[in-house]
Amino acid sequence: MTTRSISPNMALDQLIIERKARGEDILHLGFGESRLPVFPALIERLMAGAKNSAYGPVVGGLAARRAVAGWFDRRRLPTDPGQIVLAPGSKPLLMALQMSLPGDLVVPRPAWNTYVPQAVALGKLVHPVPIPEACGGVPDPALLRGVVEDARAAGANPRIMILTLPDNPTGTHAPPALVRELCALAQELDLVIISDEIYRDVLHDPREPFLSPAEIAPERTVVTTGLSKNLAIGGWRIGAARFPEGPLGEDIRAAVAAAASEVWSNLAGPMQEVAAYAFDEPPELTEHIARSTRLHGIVARRAHELLVKAGGACRPPTGAFYLYPDLEPIRDALAEHGVTDSASLEHRFLEHTGVAVLGGHHLGDLPQALRFRIATCQLYGPTEEAQQQALDAADPLQLPYVSQALSRWEESLVRLFC
Amino acid sequence: MTTRSISPNMALDQLIIERKARGEDILHLGFGESRLPVFPALIERLMAGAKNSAYGPVVGGLAARRAVAGWFDRRRLPTDPGQIVLAPGSKPLLMALQMSLPGDLVVPRPAWNTYVPQAVALGKLVHPVPIPEACGGVPDPALLRGVVEDARAAGANPRIMILTLPDNPTGTHAPPALVRELCALAQELDLVIISDEIYRDVLHDPREPFLSPAEIAPERTVVTTGLSKNLAIGGWRIGAARFPEGPLGEDIRAAVAAAASEVWSNLAGPMQEVAAYAFDEPPELTEHIARSTRLHGIVARRAHELLVKAGGACRPPTGAFYLYPDLEPIRDALAEHGVTDSASLEHRFLEHTGVAVLGGHHLGDLPQALRFRIATCQLYGPTEEAQQQALDAADPLQLPYVSQALSRWEESLVRLFC
Repeated sequence: MTTRSISPNMALDQLIIERKARGEDILHLGFGESRLPVFPALIERLMAGAKNSAYGPVVGGLAARRAVAGWFDRRRLPTDPGQIVLAPGSKPLLMALQMSLPGDLVVPRPAWNTYVPQAVALGKLVHPVPIPEACGGVPDPALLRGVVEDARAAGANPRIMILTLPDNPTGTHAPPALVRELCALAQELDLVIISDEIYRDVLHDPREPFLSPAEIAPERTVVTTGLSKNLAIGGWRIGAARFPEGPLGEDIRAAVAAAASEVWSNLAGPMQEVAAYAFDEPPELTEHIARSTRLHGIVARRAHELLVKAGGACRPPTGAFYLYPDLEPIRDALAEHGVTDSASLEHRFLEHTGVAVLGGHHLGDLPQALRFRIATCQLYGPTEEAQQQALDAADPLQLPYVSQALSRWEESLVRLFC
Repeated sequence: MTTRSISPNMALDQLIIERKARGEDILHLGFGESRLPVFPALIERLMAGAKNSAYGPVVGGLAARRAVAGWFDRRRLPTDPGQIVLAPGSKPLLMALQMSLPGDLVVPRPAWNTYVPQAVALGKLVHPVPIPEACGGVPDPALLRGVVEDARAAGANPRIMILTLPDNPTGTHAPPALVRELCALAQELDLVIISDEIYRDVLHDPREPFLSPAEIAPERTVVTTGLSKNLAIGGWRIGAARFPEGPLGEDIRAAVAAAASEVWSNLAGPMQEVAAYAFDEPPELTEHIARSTRLHGIVARRAHELLVKAGGACRPPTGAFYLYPDLEPIRDALAEHGVTDSASLEHRFLEHTGVAVLGGHHLGDLPQALRFRIATCQLYGPTEEAQQQALDAADPLQLPYVSQALSRWEESLVRLFC
């Protein structure tokens, strides 16, 4: 068999769900799933779409593609519906892109845990480039050229670069100047850019400048997005991609549509109705997304404060709902408890403090580094009611569940040493 | 790019939809989509599942897997829910199986048009074996050993055999004796069997014996199925696979779950609720499926009669909703009109008679053969109301739309020569 274990974040999620079902008391920060109630209008649209039982176009129906195109239009990326492909999540689109684009893959290190296994399953080589000091989701431009040139000198063929803007796992996003620099390098090194912007609407400060590589290197950038993160409906599986205008873009789009027709046929009809509504951004939905993002930011920043107070290093979060701490500053103290790498750190968190985190080695990071990811979106509450309260609260940090969960996170950083 | 054109049946469907939208009068028999209204209880279940917005297990939730296991139990295949994986259609499951199973692919010729492109995208070699005289969906056992041994002698490594029971494109199904013979050969030649049984509940005569290879070679057979065909909800994308008990089966299942976690994450939560209901086979749904299948059989048999009357050869349909005619008996007459292969035949049907058919070359058949597929499920009517009438009618052949559409099919066989 080619691969034998499921995605490490999903495997951890299933393990923790099983252990909690057996009565264990675990604070599960290991899985990047926004836990918020489904916005009621989305359920109405799902119902309205129930009669869409025909296959329809592989790329998605015109209404849904028009809505996605409009979503990009409003983000300084004028888009024709013909440039859009919808799919059951952005994951299959990323797979189809890797099936369609020739050459090997350049990824930031660390990166979301699916890019690399997709490449490996397709026989591609992977060239990781460490992220810069300031933010994750992108290769350090100072190192990118060297990695690509060395790889080419060794006979490999890096031709695709994935950027995650904002980033999972670091919860940060690359500033415009860095994006420009990377676009120039992509041009020079002839790399196609896949810009994974699924967290674009989860930028904590809406005034923060965001630049898509598709604005700077439009002819070579494919953007992927979806509704899983901003609307907390990961389980509904709704994703979309925007392809460049022009001949290269049309070639890639056609190849992805071909792959789509052989792998998933189409996004389910009822889900297309949801997409047509949500990507159209009616005011009530925009307001809901803004409230959700505000909550993500408040809780992530507090979790970050606690981590820093406990002696960990960590980039301050600016987007998504993650922290990616580095416990290098307290390596010696951890070593006394047998923790010497991210696997033993993940293990000690779970077995000794009851907190599930995802070790950096699962995200392609150096195994000996003491880095890991926590998903702060898991701190809002176990029930729909608690989650709704967190969403509605003027100060969610004062809510009993949220404050207890944050205290538990804080204590876990002490209990690592007990 | 690896592939450049979408699945030929989907491409034809999109072309015909566009031409009809421009006002052309085309009888579209080119696409295998059952056109029947969605059964109301399925819509209720979709609504009930709307709150399932979390990712949940990659393989599907326990309730849905339990229902699918029960569906197999009632078909002489005792099944534990742990042997089941759900997905957005059986197409991604077939892709994940080909990603997971080592070795090259043996397929019947002709075969459904997705097996081969999936294999090619994954770098597998494909070894087609002609189907027997009596039915399609399976390699002729008299030829199978020779093809596999020749391939191995030439350095290839055929290790997977796909069977389609009942078959798309021929609308027939292999009798038990033939299935037994193929299972023995699979054992002898060490081939894993993928048994695509998505049309299993569309067997025209319910008394007709059906044998799954999983009953005869249980340790080496994976069965795929779904709700697209029996319930006419292809656009909802609900599929499932049953893996063998035992170590080989568990290895394959784990590898497919791993591929699933990297390609599609999970079947959408609301669709899992639909699956839990439908695979449980409540009496009202079984009755609905029986009525649908009766309609498929009546119309397919009538279309077959008309074809034979016009001088074509064709296996009598016994399952699904297709005919796969062979116009070899009237080759000379067709040659006078420039029709010498299945591409020119498909073209003449569309441009000269206004009937869209799918040429056999798209299904892996020999290009010079005068064979093509028609989807008789397209003959029930263009509106939900007409389709419901066809479903309810004691004699659907008497309904105005159905009888006119069948007449148009009959006339097209004459107009080929005008």
